[in-house]
Amino acid sequence: MYQAKAYSVASATAQFTPQSIPRRATTERDVQIEILFCGICHSDLHTARDEWHSIMPTTYPCVPGHEIVGRVTEVGSAVTKFKAGDLVGVGCLVDSDHSCPSCQANLEQFCPGSTFTYNSPDQHGTAPVTYGGYSESIVVDESFVLRVPKNLELAGVAPLLCAGITTYSPIRRWGDLKGKKVGVVGLGGLGHMGVKFAHAFGAHVVVFTTSPGKREAALKLGAHDVIVSSDPEQMKQHAGTFNFILDTIAADHDINAYINMLGLEGNITLVGAPETPLKLSAFALIFGRKSISGSLIGGLKETQEMLDFCGEHNITSDVEVIPVQKINEAYERMVKSDVRYRFSIDMASLKEE
Amino acid sequence: MYQAKAYSVASATAQFTPQSIPRRATTERDVQIEILFCGICHSDLHTARDEWHSIMPTTYPCVPGHEIVGRVTEVGSAVTKFKAGDLVGVGCLVDSDHSCPSCQANLEQFCPGSTFTYNSPDQHGTAPVTYGGYSESIVVDESFVLRVPKNLELAGVAPLLCAGITTYSPIRRWGDLKGKKVGVVGLGGLGHMGVKFAHAFGAHVVVFTTSPGKREAALKLGAHDVIVSSDPEQMKQHAGTFNFILDTIAADHDINAYINMLGLEGNITLVGAPETPLKLSAFALIFGRKSISGSLIGGLKETQEMLDFCGEHNITSDVEVIPVQKINEAYERMVKSDVRYRFSIDMASLKEE
Repeated sequence: MYQAKAYSVASATAQFTPQSIPRRATTERDVQIEILFCGICHSDLHTARDEWHSIMPTTYPCVPGHEIVGRVTEVGSAVTKFKAGDLVGVGCLVDSDHSCPSCQANLEQFCPGSTFTYNSPDQHGTAPVTYGGYSESIVVDESFVLRVPKNLELAGVAPLLCAGITTYSPIRRWGDLKGKKVGVVGLGGLGHMGVKFAHAFGAHVVVFTTSPGKREAALKLGAHDVIVSSDPEQMKQHAGTFNFILDTIAADHDINAYINMLGLEGNITLVGAPETPLKLSAFALIFGRKSISGSLIGGLKETQEMLDFCGEHNITSDVEVIPVQKINEAYERMVKSDVRYRFSIDMASLKEE
Repeated sequence: MYQAKAYSVASATAQFTPQSIPRRATTERDVQIEILFCGICHSDLHTARDEWHSIMPTTYPCVPGHEIVGRVTEVGSAVTKFKAGDLVGVGCLVDSDHSCPSCQANLEQFCPGSTFTYNSPDQHGTAPVTYGGYSESIVVDESFVLRVPKNLELAGVAPLLCAGITTYSPIRRWGDLKGKKVGVVGLGGLGHMGVKFAHAFGAHVVVFTTSPGKREAALKLGAHDVIVSSDPEQMKQHAGTFNFILDTIAADHDINAYINMLGLEGNITLVGAPETPLKLSAFALIFGRKSISGSLIGGLKETQEMLDFCGEHNITSDVEVIPVQKINEAYERMVKSDVRYRFSIDMASLKEE
């Protein structure tokens, strides 16, 4: 066991402050990683502020961060996939039961015994809960460590580990999107990745946004068109024409308006989870036999596939790099959607503490 | 043009009374059918009482009925598929534009130019709107006439034309159900057909009902098990175990409770359409990447496939046969779900008027 520098919160209303946290000694299957960049995800904020109390109450101190990119510093004796010096990533999961039907199907995210990267009971007993990536280092079972393509800018790779796989997985699964009309609802951390992936898969990509000012930015990301969703005329014009829509909105919104955008047998997949139930019109689904799905990150195999795909297509997240000392400020700005499109913490800044 | 006996309502609050209605002379592509049985569908009641006013206002007089079985009495000169004496069926559609993408995909039910069997503008100008099957005869374009297997009891075939195809289509489309756990929510006209089809496709069929008293009836129809949905213990015991659920409930209900019954990547398909929006938890869909779909009857090709399947597997609807004079009473009983499981009008009774 050793102590690592980290930024943590001591309560739901506390600010992030520098602390030291215990990390376990590298066991035979472990990879010890020096963290270079860590993205800031909305889940970090929900957890830090205990906003998901009813589902998963937060244990303090809390060290969020599950968009981790770093360099291997040490590997256990049984580790075969990695060696010191390798560029690697860690996403939302650091362990699972390795044996349930979900794990066998490479869908570790649905394993009932999975360990999340932070705020999950620590199976190794190093601390009450796992501590995430707002830290100088982390120790992870090699099965949950991913290879990072060498050609990508690392600050922008970090968000791929959550925002990237969250959007890649449903887009990839929906089938061949070449030439199909694909919508992306919302242009934040998730949405901007959705645009990049849908574009890379050859779709005709249309962004739905309430902000007409986002048009240029959407086109620059690879969208072919933008619909201002608050304009009934624009919505009407495109009604019934979409094959697939990725819905990244985590606030309450009119889901039926987007179902109406779908053509025959179209699908809308939710990757954002509004707290209040969505009001779903059965008629909207029945006419055109459409569907709504949900999707949650991706398994390890698919996450590796996504990273490799990003390497081949030179895809990274658009990030604003900040020093660790600016996390509190970044949280305030994130609440106001004042970031294009993800914060990525440069962990070199932690060494200066 | 000729006059046919029929039962119609003159207003939303009127009772059914015998009237005569115009039917067109048989054109070259038409099939004239002597109606032997006509099922009573909930849509008939909604339309007769103008309860779908906002979507499709009812034009009076109104002659409902789109679960029609009869015998061909005359065919037009260009008709190739049928001859006088053939047993045939007519469902919810009597025409479409024959050219749109939906029609080309054999999904005439989604054709924007489709003509419903009743209360749809009559393209032939015989009457303001089409008149349905509560009548002694009907004249229909041969493309919308279906062959009825000879081995089936005709009174129970009639409901196949709507309740049958409505449930067959989503069950068939979901894929190979052999050995899969399939739920059917509700045990009415639709649900009892869902049980029969899911059973015939080799699924392990479980009926969800609020009425413990329906257990025996469900098992007799082919269900392997029954869950009383109002019992949290029973619901909990089966949570996460279903591959597919067919939801036939047209009243408001807790959709998330059924989504929770689904296992990984499970689907629930709605064939009933509650008037008020369902309250959908995005979380319920996201964890397990599940989906909800809608489904609407079926195209002509699939309806014929369903009838042929019923012939091979000796499947008909369980019906209570009534004379046409008892339609008003049947409607009152249908509102109270007092029928196992569908009324089928014996049109011989109309000759005695």
